[in-house]
Amino acid sequence: MLTAWVIGAAGYAGGELVRLLLSHPETSIAGLMEARFIGQPFYEIYPHLRDLVLLPLSEYDPDKLTNADIIFAALPHGKSLEVVRDFVANDLRVVDLSADFRFSDRSAYEKWYGTHTASHLLKQAIYGLPELNRDKISRAKLVANPGCYPTGALLALIPPLKASVVELTSIIVNAVSGISGAGRSVNESLMFCEVNEGVRPYAICSHRHMPEIEMIASSVAGRDVQVSFVPHIAPMNRGILSTVYFDLTQEMEEDEVRQIYLDHYRDEPFIRVLPPGVHPSTKNVLGTNYCDLSITGDRGRRAVVVTAIDNLGKGAAGQAVQNMNLMFDLREDLGLDLPPVFP
Amino acid sequence: MLTAWVIGAAGYAGGELVRLLLSHPETSIAGLMEARFIGQPFYEIYPHLRDLVLLPLSEYDPDKLTNADIIFAALPHGKSLEVVRDFVANDLRVVDLSADFRFSDRSAYEKWYGTHTASHLLKQAIYGLPELNRDKISRAKLVANPGCYPTGALLALIPPLKASVVELTSIIVNAVSGISGAGRSVNESLMFCEVNEGVRPYAICSHRHMPEIEMIASSVAGRDVQVSFVPHIAPMNRGILSTVYFDLTQEMEEDEVRQIYLDHYRDEPFIRVLPPGVHPSTKNVLGTNYCDLSITGDRGRRAVVVTAIDNLGKGAAGQAVQNMNLMFDLREDLGLDLPPVFP
Amino acid sequence: MLTAWVIGAAGYAGGELVRLLLSHPETSIAGLMEARFIGQPFYEIYPHLRDLVLLPLSEYDPDKLTNADIIFAALPHGKSLEVVRDFVANDLRVVDLSADFRFSDRSAYEKWYGTHTASHLLKQAIYGLPELNRDKISRAKLVANPGCYPTGALLALIPPLKASVVELTSIIVNAVSGISGAGRSVNESLMFCEVNEGVRPYAICSHRHMPEIEMIASSVAGRDVQVSFVPHIAPMNRGILSTVYFDLTQEMEEDEVRQIYLDHYRDEPFIRVLPPGVHPSTKNVLGTNYCDLSITGDRGRRAVVVTAIDNLGKGAAGQAVQNMNLMFDLREDLGLDLPPVFP
Amino acid sequence: MLTAWVIGAAGYAGGELVRLLLSHPETSIAGLMEARFIGQPFYEIYPHLRDLVLLPLSEYDPDKLTNADIIFAALPHGKSLEVVRDFVANDLRVVDLSADFRFSDRSAYEKWYGTHTASHLLKQAIYGLPELNRDKISRAKLVANPGCYPTGALLALIPPLKASVVELTSIIVNAVSGISGAGRSVNESLMFCEVNEGVRPYAICSHRHMPEIEMIASSVAGRDVQVSFVPHIAPMNRGILSTVYFDLTQEMEEDEVRQIYLDHYRDEPFIRVLPPGVHPSTKNVLGTNYCDLSITGDRGRRAVVVTAIDNLGKGAAGQAVQNMNLMFDLREDLGLDLPPVFP
Repeated sequence: MLTAWVIGAAGYAGGELVRLLLSHPETSIAGLMEARFIGQPFYEIYPHLRDLVLLPLSEYDPDKLTNADIIFAALPHGKSLEVVRDFVANDLRVVDLSADFRFSDRSAYEKWYGTHTASHLLKQAIYGLPELNRDKISRAKLVANPGCYPTGALLALIPPLKASVVELTSIIVNAVSGISGAGRSVNESLMFCEVNEGVRPYAICSHRHMPEIEMIASSVAGRDVQVSFVPHIAPMNRGILSTVYFDLTQEMEEDEVRQIYLDHYRDEPFIRVLPPGVHPSTKNVLGTNYCDLSITGDRGRRAVVVTAIDNLGKGAAGQAVQNMNLMFDLREDLGLDLPPVFP
Repeated sequence: MLTAWVIGAAGYAGGELVRLLLSHPETSIAGLMEARFIGQPFYEIYPHLRDLVLLPLSEYDPDKLTNADIIFAALPHGKSLEVVRDFVANDLRVVDLSADFRFSDRSAYEKWYGTHTASHLLKQAIYGLPELNRDKISRAKLVANPGCYPTGALLALIPPLKASVVELTSIIVNAVSGISGAGRSVNESLMFCEVNEGVRPYAICSHRHMPEIEMIASSVAGRDVQVSFVPHIAPMNRGILSTVYFDLTQEMEEDEVRQIYLDHYRDEPFIRVLPPGVHPSTKNVLGTNYCDLSITGDRGRRAVVVTAIDNLGKGAAGQAVQNMNLMFDLREDLGLDLPPVFP
Repeated sequence: MLTAWVIGAAGYAGGELVRLLLSHPETSIAGLMEARFIGQPFYEIYPHLRDLVLLPLSEYDPDKLTNADIIFAALPHGKSLEVVRDFVANDLRVVDLSADFRFSDRSAYEKWYGTHTASHLLKQAIYGLPELNRDKISRAKLVANPGCYPTGALLALIPPLKASVVELTSIIVNAVSGISGAGRSVNESLMFCEVNEGVRPYAICSHRHMPEIEMIASSVAGRDVQVSFVPHIAPMNRGILSTVYFDLTQEMEEDEVRQIYLDHYRDEPFIRVLPPGVHPSTKNVLGTNYCDLSITGDRGRRAVVVTAIDNLGKGAAGQAVQNMNLMFDLREDLGLDLPPVFP
Repeated sequence: MLTAWVIGAAGYAGGELVRLLLSHPETSIAGLMEARFIGQPFYEIYPHLRDLVLLPLSEYDPDKLTNADIIFAALPHGKSLEVVRDFVANDLRVVDLSADFRFSDRSAYEKWYGTHTASHLLKQAIYGLPELNRDKISRAKLVANPGCYPTGALLALIPPLKASVVELTSIIVNAVSGISGAGRSVNESLMFCEVNEGVRPYAICSHRHMPEIEMIASSVAGRDVQVSFVPHIAPMNRGILSTVYFDLTQEMEEDEVRQIYLDHYRDEPFIRVLPPGVHPSTKNVLGTNYCDLSITGDRGRRAVVVTAIDNLGKGAAGQAVQNMNLMFDLREDLGLDLPPVFP
């Protein structure tokens, strides 16, 4: 039984981690740390977990963590690197859900996020996308859990990039997210009436997940890749639908493109490549670690690949648990085999 | 390992049964019968279950059921009694989710639903509300799973009725349901645009669940009870919130009333009696078998008791699995301990 | 052409006032005052009004108001009484959307809202429900616009109270509101993900609109009336559905009860009494000043009367404009004849 | 006063036409024809219009139309051409909301829609996008109202195509629509629970609006233009957000691209070009004929242009009324100056 801690448990990703760890047969939640609500039972801020979680939120205290098997850090960027630095110094194993250790290059991080005071760890941190880095993750001490948008985008981009069929200047990622992607903290523009009954884009080609997508895509392609990334929000709680467009380097039938994905993802437990004419919906992955994916060709010269994930599942807490499973040599889908809730 | 069959698997209650049975450690789904979609894989009509359920929908065929440990009948009323009759004749154990065996009295059934052609079974069928009939259910062959609205209403009414503190002519049940309560079949008035952004009542004091509530409430009270029942729909997928009003036979403090519930539900695994000032939300029970419940007094002479359930959970499939657990002497919450999904 | 000012224009009621006044053929908006966003164009905080409203938000300044024909005060209670006092002193005409002048009795106000420092005006303020006080409103200087919940409840209660058919101890008002009822200011518990996909009650029998309903109902009945009032929120932007229950003093057919309403509201421009079997939906009044109303009997001894209003329309800004029309002897529905938006 | 008829009044576009014509100062609705609900008052199928529209739905009868000033045909494609043929033969003026007269080329129509039996009219029909064809519309007998998606896409594409700054092989239109775009007829996949809490694409690069976009874009560009068009649905009633991507033929600053739009749309009453950093939301145009539009550059080589319209407004009924205004030399925004409803 692994003892797990969640640092920053009050946010939505923290709450989802608690939900998943509760159902996980090989972990027990040792404690929940937070900067707010200290001393309150967790179920008071997450009343759906009444009777299920009796632990209170406690103040951050590294001394309590010395025997932790696994620490999930679900803190804002900039905060995370300060505590993760200590964990690594104490040889603890960490899955960090912030952006702080996703960039291999300090300057790239600092351009988008601010000063990095633990950049010596960037080299050893592993980008926690199991479909890309499974082996490295299984040996890692520090896993940087990918961003929600990058997860949905990269799972669409990696197979054709590896197969060298993507015109590298042509990539467009149009993503639509549910509102929980913005976290649980108060934000006037995300009040119910402000977002209900509307769809809108934001941070067009200037979202911090754009350089993250470009960095990983470039490393997969072995060459510089630019991606035009436009996030949108839609009035739903969870889910990211990424509609990814790229020109093909040569004329290809839709089936040929699909075969690249079928081959690439043949053994993946969480990628469901859909048959011709069937497309993903965020509803179908709600509450799970699945990524549903469809491929459509446009007149032989362009492909449209659509992925659907749960932003709190495969886009955050689910993937974090998947990474933990890999780090501890557990079955990769342990605790993640909950059927989706529908409708 | 119990072999379970679901008859009428394509509806929402059927889909939820499949979801719950998939996670249940002591059952395996032997087959899924339906009148429609015969031969299609179940995941084609419930794409969220792709890779998780490989079974097709098959035509109704009683010969296949002879070795079934448990049959869940999720058919429309009138259809159900025809097949259940056969099951009982063959000594099979059944949880029937229709209204066909909820009424002990044939004429009451026929007044609201139409001719009953298996009324000889009404006596032996047990009304499957475990909080009321736990022992009888555990010995039953045929369990009539309660209606969704009656479940939410009766869990609010039973304790004070038993304690004889309810003015019997004063009971009002105001219920608000999510849209899945109407089932998966096509209904023009339940198209997205027709219900989104609106709340409305229907079948005011004329819904078929009203006599069901009155029958059970009367039997608990030992006297005739009339209930004014008004269902409403609200734009959400799941959940029933029942706001139940009744006058007290004597002046009582809110705490005294609450104590009746605390005492009555002390050992119930699925009833969460909330502390003063905390009220239920359907969100907090989504995807579960919980019933959250709060008690508020109004100036000593009236009580307002609010319950929240998931209409597909405690209001249908969850309660059906709870009943199965009792019938087979399994831990009552086996397979039902999934934490709710939030948000 | 009347020159109109809106004080507290940034809230939802303020925004709706601006929308309605824009379409009103006999008013022109002279200015918009606010405590926040001063100097910003109004369309920056309400981008749907870009090109339609060019006015900025300006600081509160009574000197600018000396020539105002009509002032709409859409301020929080406690703030409103301070400015309204000045308006009245300067002989200006005001529709106040706060609770500050709704209570004729100072102690009733102070029990629920805090100290009242302009209580000398309580006598002259007219409770602005045109269906009750049309004549007084037409002569008033200071109109206290009713609360949103009281409007929906009282329109159901006034006719049978006047007809003396209501058992006065039996009244229950179960109301479900859209989220805009809580205003535009930031509130963690009203973030999209916190309310979407859930229905819940709040302030059970302790909401400040309960004494307001009781005060007016009592004055109509000529005797003390107690009302159990339970507000709920549902995931929609606008609308209040009030389901009102009361016992009849004598056995009556549904048609007899309905006739009371048909007679009482025969000449009302904004009350639509629905035929038997047709019930209100908040969708059908969205964006309007209508109140839809249905009557259903329960076995001769109880009536269930349902009203639907738009909380920002008849529940706030629409009724405020209706009151203004009366005060200035304009056609009562001037500027309020916009057809509802559906779906 | 123009006498207007609506043929096919029961659908959502028909309902919106009725709403708009009701508020239009220069038209009166002479009659409403339908294939269903004949003899029923219109307000029974659109209860929000109770008291506002007293007309019944009547059977299609061309004899009644001989004196019509303007006919709005809101019929399914294939049906429309049959009746419109008669109208034109009788020298009546028509705005046709179907696809039947949008294509100048019969074979293009027949490839996507089926046999065209009135193709002799294709030449004289004018594509009713006022921002493109204002003069022709003002002289037209038969106006083919554009599709909802083409309206949103073309308003983003026309200015840069005219300015010859678009790399013609690079255009991508990613559109997200509310559910009313699918019309009011029953469709299992658009039941509330099937679409709520989910976003999904459909008809990827195979939607019938794709050739319509390509045809008009090609005619504007003077060369063949291919567009990859991917429609999606989101859980909201109304609105289309189109996110349009194209490569620039030469490196350009964002401001230069925006200036093309500002110049092109300078005098347009319904196009609101937003300032830098402000983006459209479908909420801000709800219930109106506006198209909000923003321009963003991506590193000098690509532009992202976003438009928001109400699919029933500028995407259907609003634009139809705008076309009528042009055809009868009325002020172009007459009856269309209703402020949007928010929230």
